[in-house]
Amino acid sequence: MGYGMDEADLKALCAESPVHRWLALDIEKAPRGVALHTQLDDRLAQAETGQTAHGGIVATLLDTAATFALIAESGHDWTTVDLRIDYLRPTPLRRVTVVGEVVRLGRRIGRASSALTDQDGKLCAVAIGTFVPVDEP
Amino acid sequence: MGYGMDEADLKALCAESPVHRWLALDIEKAPRGVALHTQLDDRLAQAETGQTAHGGIVATLLDTAATFALIAESGHDWTTVDLRIDYLRPTPLRRVTVVGEVVRLGRRIGRASSALTDQDGKLCAVAIGTFVPVDEP
Amino acid sequence: MGYGMDEADLKALCAESPVHRWLALDIEKAPRGVALHTQLDDRLAQAETGQTAHGGIVATLLDTAATFALIAESGHDWTTVDLRIDYLRPTPLRRVTVVGEVVRLGRRIGRASSALTDQDGKLCAVAIGTFVPVDEP
Amino acid sequence: MGYGMDEADLKALCAESPVHRWLALDIEKAPRGVALHTQLDDRLAQAETGQTAHGGIVATLLDTAATFALIAESGHDWTTVDLRIDYLRPTPLRRVTVVGEVVRLGRRIGRASSALTDQDGKLCAVAIGTFVPVDEP
Repeated sequence: MGYGMDEADLKALCAESPVHRWLALDIEKAPRGVALHTQLDDRLAQAETGQTAHGGIVATLLDTAATFALIAESGHDWTTVDLRIDYLRPTPLRRVTVVGEVVRLGRRIGRASSALTDQDGKLCAVAIGTFVPVDEP
Repeated sequence: MGYGMDEADLKALCAESPVHRWLALDIEKAPRGVALHTQLDDRLAQAETGQTAHGGIVATLLDTAATFALIAESGHDWTTVDLRIDYLRPTPLRRVTVVGEVVRLGRRIGRASSALTDQDGKLCAVAIGTFVPVDEP
Repeated sequence: MGYGMDEADLKALCAESPVHRWLALDIEKAPRGVALHTQLDDRLAQAETGQTAHGGIVATLLDTAATFALIAESGHDWTTVDLRIDYLRPTPLRRVTVVGEVVRLGRRIGRASSALTDQDGKLCAVAIGTFVPVDEP
Repeated sequence: MGYGMDEADLKALCAESPVHRWLALDIEKAPRGVALHTQLDDRLAQAETGQTAHGGIVATLLDTAATFALIAESGHDWTTVDLRIDYLRPTPLRRVTVVGEVVRLGRRIGRASSALTDQDGKLCAVAIGTFVPVDEP
């Protein structure tokens, strides 16, 4: 409280990346972090005929949610040091929610996790990563 | 030998995903796997003003190279079970090479690693993951 | 239910490993998995003068709890394919609890996570891993 | 050069942990890091009847080799932030070698990998992790 970032600033920061705009990410604050919402479409398919998102797109969503959880809670920017993604079931090309949560917020090191669920609330993929604060220029 | 996939088939399979076409991936066979080449551009930026690729794009390239290493060596398709990415330095929005290599090719489980280097040969990110064969429909 | 393993069988299986006996592990069933309890002592120190457990001992506890979560829920044995450990704070040489939970139980692949808390309920380390069923001889 | 730690100091530091003495680790310098040698025995078995090391013991060896690679190259102590282990085949209860190598040595963050091979030179397990310098008291 008082140390975090408000939702309007989060939305502005999130919209700065062309990748986030391409994915039409909508971000909001959530307990200990953020929730992202987006509608996945054919551009993001694993294969032509499939109805499943590319694993790299899933990784992008999970990385973004985890990073923004730390930003939301700390009030400053972070960069990913490493990330593990577990793909639990195929992610359908439909509306998905990606929740990011801070696991531990340190001064030099932050940890955050994220979880992607589909429209039916099924857990499709989870991630956990290590992050460091972005040095101001 | 005799069990792998030839380069023309790899190129065709790689081009099936709209994500790979969006990233303009060029794939070729390499020892124990594949090499991907692409020119990263402003669409893939981490932030508006930066000259650095989004971490999710780096993850997409590393996942794709590792998966195709297993495809190239085994001759059949694989899907990612889990993946760890280590970001070693920012990936510039320039020409990059992503080498994927099989670590261990089993019947039920495959392991592959990948490494992204920039135009100057600097190592920007590495990954290692676990994969399973895609069941034929 | 009906497919899991009962607590007496879990205790017997856990006691089969000399490593588990050396760590004096006490195992019990818990929601979606198991809980391990043990008293860490000087034999397990990171360094002579420290009061902190060696990271490898923490890894051993987290691996064991995650593996036994899958055993408890499935009723058969599993082996670790890969594991990620996040060390959040030093683990004191005192009484600790390690909870293992199934994330997703498949026929060919299982995923489980684990969390180590100290006597004061502080979260010291977490892990997530991928596992495969052990083939019966 | 001039910044690293010499082999006698590495051996002394390694012997400080009762866990390392229990595992009878022998450490020596190697290119970009260290090599550990040890003879695994029945105390370290996965199960009573097996001739395979417990996964937690493998994790301990890989964590130690990676950490000491950073110590050897930097000349100061490091602690593990996170670690991923890939188990490629069972580790036999025989003589093993564990090579640790620095992947990237930064001021605030270090990355190192490690690989365990058995007596026949077969690769049994690999790891990669993120580390931070230990603050002097």
